[in-house]
Amino acid sequence: MGLFITFEGSEGCGKSFQSKVLYNKLYDLGIQVELIYEPGGTVLGNEMRRLLKKRREDDVVPETELFLFAACRAQLVAEIIQPSLQKGKIVICDRFTDSTIAYQGYGRGIQLATIETINCIATKGIKPNLTILLDLPVAQGLSRKKTKNRDRFEKAELSFHYRVREGYQKLAAAEPERWMVIDATLSKTEISNIIWDRVSQLLDLLHINYTTP
Amino acid sequence: MGLFITFEGSEGCGKSFQSKVLYNKLYDLGIQVELIYEPGGTVLGNEMRRLLKKRREDDVVPETELFLFAACRAQLVAEIIQPSLQKGKIVICDRFTDSTIAYQGYGRGIQLATIETINCIATKGIKPNLTILLDLPVAQGLSRKKTKNRDRFEKAELSFHYRVREGYQKLAAAEPERWMVIDATLSKTEISNIIWDRVSQLLDLLHINYTTP
Repeated sequence: MGLFITFEGSEGCGKSFQSKVLYNKLYDLGIQVELIYEPGGTVLGNEMRRLLKKRREDDVVPETELFLFAACRAQLVAEIIQPSLQKGKIVICDRFTDSTIAYQGYGRGIQLATIETINCIATKGIKPNLTILLDLPVAQGLSRKKTKNRDRFEKAELSFHYRVREGYQKLAAAEPERWMVIDATLSKTEISNIIWDRVSQLLDLLHINYTTP
Repeated sequence: MGLFITFEGSEGCGKSFQSKVLYNKLYDLGIQVELIYEPGGTVLGNEMRRLLKKRREDDVVPETELFLFAACRAQLVAEIIQPSLQKGKIVICDRFTDSTIAYQGYGRGIQLATIETINCIATKGIKPNLTILLDLPVAQGLSRKKTKNRDRFEKAELSFHYRVREGYQKLAAAEPERWMVIDATLSKTEISNIIWDRVSQLLDLLHINYTTP
């Protein structure tokens, strides 16, 4: 089996950037690696990502949102994540099940047990080996995003974003061996160095050979 | 609370036709009635209906399909079914939760318990008062549909359709007080008369006044 790494965090925390940095580093070392992002990543997922993001906040009820993300995830797991891990690849995913717990559970108030059940069906029980949380104060994260072209998540009320951050922190505290929490106010280089230290340890553990970059 | 009537059955059984006949009859009597169909019925649902129907059979894994239908259903329940029933309306739905059990459960082999859990979240526990099954031998149902422009469900292998029919029959046998099974090889008029006999009894029970049509 390969290695499954997910990036989590609230809006503007820099996870898309850092997941690309990690992907490039691994790719340059000749390691077989896939970079995907939720809720896109498959043809169907991309169409739904577009559909979900363009809807107005009050158009979609929380349960619908939950099921749409689950649909994208089930397709992503079956099409890409599971086959890649079975081939021994490293899979990096920008958002995964923990986003659903943080956003739809803590943020929107859907029962956590309900979300766990749905996540479990969608992922066939596949869990990340490492989840990197880029933790950022809410106000700072939102100010990093441009005010125009904000999608429905970015436009949500401030208290929603506070609940999301708190949700992430609770998840990380409950499973410290899986989560690595990084202060996202650090510089990009500092953050990518911290991530690389941990990932390279995992590569050693898995006996994946590479030359120091 | 109003009255919730669903139509079920395999391809070509005539349920879209009969649900319209019943709707028109009730509407002409001045009774407040809504006719909806799954997986459409809402703006979001219609977009997803289009998306789901155009995908190729092997493109979408069973779990994705399950979640997409659940998403449409959650939106339909929240936007239309629940508010209409609360206003005392009659809601007629062309396909509902039992379709998921018959098609995704018996047809595609997803565990029935999984489907029950997801149905329950999507519907907030709302169940039909009456479910009309138009039961038709598989070969006859398929031959009623034109061979061109068949969607992915109509193109599925024959054994799939046999499993779906068997699933419906088991559901009806397990809850005879909710289900009414009608031989769909009868004439359209005979079928609509049988349906009207039952529905008019329900209207009497609910003290909904109407003039005999």
